[in-house]
Amino acid sequence: MDRLKEKILQEGRYLGNGILKVDSFMNHQIDPILMKEIGQEFARRFALHNIKATRILTAEASGIAPSLSLAMALQIPVVFARKNKPVTMADKSFTERAESHTQGKMVDLTVSSAYLTPQDKIIIVDDFLASARTLKALVKIVAQAQAQLVAVGAVIEKSFEGGRSALSDLNVPIESLATIASFDDDKVNFA
Amino acid sequence: MDRLKEKILQEGRYLGNGILKVDSFMNHQIDPILMKEIGQEFARRFALHNIKATRILTAEASGIAPSLSLAMALQIPVVFARKNKPVTMADKSFTERAESHTQGKMVDLTVSSAYLTPQDKIIIVDDFLASARTLKALVKIVAQAQAQLVAVGAVIEKSFEGGRSALSDLNVPIESLATIASFDDDKVNFA
Repeated sequence: MDRLKEKILQEGRYLGNGILKVDSFMNHQIDPILMKEIGQEFARRFALHNIKATRILTAEASGIAPSLSLAMALQIPVVFARKNKPVTMADKSFTERAESHTQGKMVDLTVSSAYLTPQDKIIIVDDFLASARTLKALVKIVAQAQAQLVAVGAVIEKSFEGGRSALSDLNVPIESLATIASFDDDKVNFA
Repeated sequence: MDRLKEKILQEGRYLGNGILKVDSFMNHQIDPILMKEIGQEFARRFALHNIKATRILTAEASGIAPSLSLAMALQIPVVFARKNKPVTMADKSFTERAESHTQGKMVDLTVSSAYLTPQDKIIIVDDFLASARTLKALVKIVAQAQAQLVAVGAVIEKSFEGGRSALSDLNVPIESLATIASFDDDKVNFA
């Protein structure tokens, strides 16, 4: 993912406190050419692990673009956990609470039971793998549904925040497309 | 868009009060094959109007999928207005308030000024064209940015809610891919 790393170097801005702003191509504006490549690269890597998934699970809003791109590559549905349960979601649902790093508050992630079943093999995808708080909430939702987690994908990993080891007991492949080992002032150091 | 209409007939559920639940393929789970076709069909229709856009504007979260699909077809960026301004958005920004139909509350839609400029030609896209409250807030954001609105696209139009006439003074093409004229009990009547 050279194009992704170039984008991070050219357009990413380090705001301090471990927060990298990637608003110009992923979290506010989306570069559709890069996003298509992101989905294809996830698909290529999961194929190397012989992953056969039935659904992708992510969280709104920033997880939707990379997840949809992967869903287009794999031709399987993507389900995005809602942060504000809409009135249209009247079914039985699974909810887990997570702290949002960029919004500084707790959010409830909710998924309708109609779209996560015990027969499902799930890939969880999100924009960042940092402390893995959101990802762990999604993992718990998969467990609530008695579905099988088969892989985790994150576009950008901040390896210094420990999320990967927090997820290691899941024993599934964890793929990130660009891994940041540290920040020096405003300079990004890839792993 | 026969596949879209079939999906609405097969999987849509009318909840009363003008609300159609399309959680199974658009607003909670996303069908990536249908979503790809939606983007391509928007692109085809806007090309017939000779629309040359530089950016797509939508609102999180349900607008992201159809907008990204169109962005992939047109190879132009998509910007999604944020409902909770994240800490990463420190720049000057444009904000408009809109009432969310499915969340029953007012939400502030915010777009960074970095991604909407006076040079931009904007297509606004959303999942629904109903009363057009969200779309009108996005139109005001385009006006704040002094950008040029060139077209509006909605996946599903509920023509009985009057949104199209509320937008008619914009004098831009308004394309919707499936138009619902009325509901009879739980039956959908297309226009």
